[in-house]
Amino acid sequence: MADARFFTPCGPFALGELAALADAQLSGGDPDLPIHDVAPLDHADRSQITFLDNLRYLPQARVTRGAACLIRPAVADQLPAAVARLLTDQPYRGYARIAARFHPTAAAPDASHPPGAEIVRDAHVHPGARLGRGCRIAAGAVIEDRAEVGPRCRIGATAVIGAGVSLGADCIIGPGATLSHCLIGARVVIHAGARIGQDGFGFALGDQAADEAGPLKVPQIGRVIVEDDVEIGANTTIDRGSGADTVIGRGCKIDNLVMIAHNVRLGPGCVVVAQSGISGSTQIGAGSILAAQVGIVGHLTLGPGIRLAARSAVTRDLPGHETYGGAPARPIRQWRRQMAAIGRLARKRGGE
Amino acid sequence: MADARFFTPCGPFALGELAALADAQLSGGDPDLPIHDVAPLDHADRSQITFLDNLRYLPQARVTRGAACLIRPAVADQLPAAVARLLTDQPYRGYARIAARFHPTAAAPDASHPPGAEIVRDAHVHPGARLGRGCRIAAGAVIEDRAEVGPRCRIGATAVIGAGVSLGADCIIGPGATLSHCLIGARVVIHAGARIGQDGFGFALGDQAADEAGPLKVPQIGRVIVEDDVEIGANTTIDRGSGADTVIGRGCKIDNLVMIAHNVRLGPGCVVVAQSGISGSTQIGAGSILAAQVGIVGHLTLGPGIRLAARSAVTRDLPGHETYGGAPARPIRQWRRQMAAIGRLARKRGGE
Amino acid sequence: MADARFFTPCGPFALGELAALADAQLSGGDPDLPIHDVAPLDHADRSQITFLDNLRYLPQARVTRGAACLIRPAVADQLPAAVARLLTDQPYRGYARIAARFHPTAAAPDASHPPGAEIVRDAHVHPGARLGRGCRIAAGAVIEDRAEVGPRCRIGATAVIGAGVSLGADCIIGPGATLSHCLIGARVVIHAGARIGQDGFGFALGDQAADEAGPLKVPQIGRVIVEDDVEIGANTTIDRGSGADTVIGRGCKIDNLVMIAHNVRLGPGCVVVAQSGISGSTQIGAGSILAAQVGIVGHLTLGPGIRLAARSAVTRDLPGHETYGGAPARPIRQWRRQMAAIGRLARKRGGE
Repeated sequence: MADARFFTPCGPFALGELAALADAQLSGGDPDLPIHDVAPLDHADRSQITFLDNLRYLPQARVTRGAACLIRPAVADQLPAAVARLLTDQPYRGYARIAARFHPTAAAPDASHPPGAEIVRDAHVHPGARLGRGCRIAAGAVIEDRAEVGPRCRIGATAVIGAGVSLGADCIIGPGATLSHCLIGARVVIHAGARIGQDGFGFALGDQAADEAGPLKVPQIGRVIVEDDVEIGANTTIDRGSGADTVIGRGCKIDNLVMIAHNVRLGPGCVVVAQSGISGSTQIGAGSILAAQVGIVGHLTLGPGIRLAARSAVTRDLPGHETYGGAPARPIRQWRRQMAAIGRLARKRGGE
Repeated sequence: MADARFFTPCGPFALGELAALADAQLSGGDPDLPIHDVAPLDHADRSQITFLDNLRYLPQARVTRGAACLIRPAVADQLPAAVARLLTDQPYRGYARIAARFHPTAAAPDASHPPGAEIVRDAHVHPGARLGRGCRIAAGAVIEDRAEVGPRCRIGATAVIGAGVSLGADCIIGPGATLSHCLIGARVVIHAGARIGQDGFGFALGDQAADEAGPLKVPQIGRVIVEDDVEIGANTTIDRGSGADTVIGRGCKIDNLVMIAHNVRLGPGCVVVAQSGISGSTQIGAGSILAAQVGIVGHLTLGPGIRLAARSAVTRDLPGHETYGGAPARPIRQWRRQMAAIGRLARKRGGE
Repeated sequence: MADARFFTPCGPFALGELAALADAQLSGGDPDLPIHDVAPLDHADRSQITFLDNLRYLPQARVTRGAACLIRPAVADQLPAAVARLLTDQPYRGYARIAARFHPTAAAPDASHPPGAEIVRDAHVHPGARLGRGCRIAAGAVIEDRAEVGPRCRIGATAVIGAGVSLGADCIIGPGATLSHCLIGARVVIHAGARIGQDGFGFALGDQAADEAGPLKVPQIGRVIVEDDVEIGANTTIDRGSGADTVIGRGCKIDNLVMIAHNVRLGPGCVVVAQSGISGSTQIGAGSILAAQVGIVGHLTLGPGIRLAARSAVTRDLPGHETYGGAPARPIRQWRRQMAAIGRLARKRGGE
């Protein structure tokens, strides 16, 4: 399936080896069968393995031509007889592991570093910068004075690593991303066009007299601390702290076009989906999940372990280990009850 | 009107020729009158042509000093007597055609390519890349290995065309845009800072044990396919497919700061207005229109020919050729009835 | 507090001098005490000054170890006895002035210009461009033909100043920002990745026949005018006018990821918080404040002096000097009444 223009799969791997990797039980297949790649249900051929997780795609599973399929035991009988089953309660996680075996480099936001590429080509590296062993810096990238880039980092074309910025080992910085005033951990992935460390939106509004020259700028003298194993999406912006730091905890996964304001602190393992925004100084506990287009006002304490439905708007502190929805956000059951009440109200009136 | 610093109009053109171009009927004007440029109602002078489409601007039309005006017959008597009428039921489309005659290059997102500019200046073109005839590559742009750039493409300053990416003829790529893992058709316009083809937000959440290192990354091995005549706005992000492809159909027009997730498929001729977001694997039929700040959850099938009001939130499949609004989105009449019911409820209570 | 890697405070300054600068009354402290930096309540030590404005942070104030604290008289007794008070009704504004004294350069979006840096290094400056005295152009930046850059401007790494663009004195352009078709005043700050002047989303939809090649593009021949003392956030997009200009009034402060469409006019001193969007041709009067994630439809006239709550959606003209909220936006009291009515409705039903 994967276009050879962009991806070259490793392998083949034996089906039994893949089942073990996915922690799945092989049923109805030859463990020695060579598998050459992964593919979606409706594209897989007899040399490939596929998966069914979301039952919405059951119709495609019923007619898949793949050699094998990761699937939950309860629906495994829906597959064509010729398809080997890899039975597991977590087909998507199993697929993730197998796909990573075939495509270990496909998590990179930048294809511009094929094996054998030059270490540094047409890049602007300041003599006062320090590059670890095995770094690859693409064309047009800028590494400023006193920046420290850890070993084996890959810096995309035209990306900018600002003065004094530090990156741990094995980071991948996408093309056109810009970093300043930040300390980045190891194995961090920052996608194209992300903006990390610019000064936050700090203005003292006060009682503005008509003749005044607008809001008063507050200098922003904190940093952004990005811990290990974080991933930050394309064109997302994370402002540096105003005095303390903005902190993105270990293993957080942040999607595209997200706004994170100064002094925000995300605990480890949080997930923030696209176009969400978190206002200044709000703290979110470990393992929380924000669906898309969520908004959170400033100076709040949320979580840990909260889940916010898409488009939620949070206006007050929320205790952890609970799911919320709506604007303003409330416990998800209460929100659904309100939605239902509004629906009835309109239908009643409409029927008058 | 147009600032000569940035725009130099062609022309002049005879009024009668412009009327024919706009498919409009000339009334009360000399077809041989030379017209030198287009201009808005309140800026036009006796050498220029203007238009009235949105009736909100009728007051400005009543006092315009333009030489001629594209206008619907029903309101043509509102113009000053000295203004020639170009009668048409589609004044804005007529204006678009005339403005394109005066300013054939003003659709370009990048002014950095005046006629006579160098073919390649200060750009980083990999020896393994292929450039078609007549390409113009601006300063600081990066063309990676195996990229193919079609004839007459213009690549803006510091834009990045990633390894293996293919562009058809006559594409315009804005400054600072970055493309990877994508195949782009002909006559495609991609504005400044757009991000096409980075790997999507694919994580298997599973049942995370407390000691686990966060969500599990799923390699993204699909592409982005952008068909002919598409336009993509500034700082918009389009992630590549996870296994199958993300597809933007022929003639789609996408505004700024839009988020399009992996595996999304837009049929031909769709319009997506600013700050909207479409979640993974959702399919939208041909000719659909999403107003600003819409959100759509993943794995849905919508349209064709649907219209979504601004700020709609779509949570389930929607049949085509219908207008929807609200969060969650429902047929527009039903949504308006709900809004009205809520308004009454508050007024009643407020009056207690 | 400030990390010496990124910030070097001026000073020390005498406590009495700082009190005068903040227009505050010193109480319980030695005016000759040397102060070495600013710091947050929970980080300040005996050499630093801090502040309490938002009473949410009163618990931290009660145990602060700072040498002095800006504070309102009504709560000044909450501080530990050892902390000198700087009494003022506007602690945050006072802090802003003092912090700017210690960190006069910390408002810059780009740390890549330490004192003594080269004037131009590895930048692409077209011979037809004009640079004022004392400009600093970072590596990889592009200054196109006929661009005029005022004295003492700082242009960040890989930023692009398009053909014919003009910047006044003392502007700061962040890394990766791109400007075209715009005239920029003095002392303007444009953060990383902002997009100014690309052509707006102008399409004539008309009655599209099924066989037509999609919406018809309307050439955009206006400019963006950015007046003095404006600040524009990271990855924000401002489209140029379609015929007239897009105008950002003097002293406006615009946050990250904001979308401003063609022909929008913002009066002086407006504040637009993150992820808000303003549709085409809407005009907003002086001193208006839009909180985060607001949306405004096109062709409206709002203000002056309006305030819009976060996530408001404005669909009609709104008179000035009033606060609005909700979707669609209405006076804030009315909106709150509706929210309360909906809450009661759901509780009543839930209790059945």
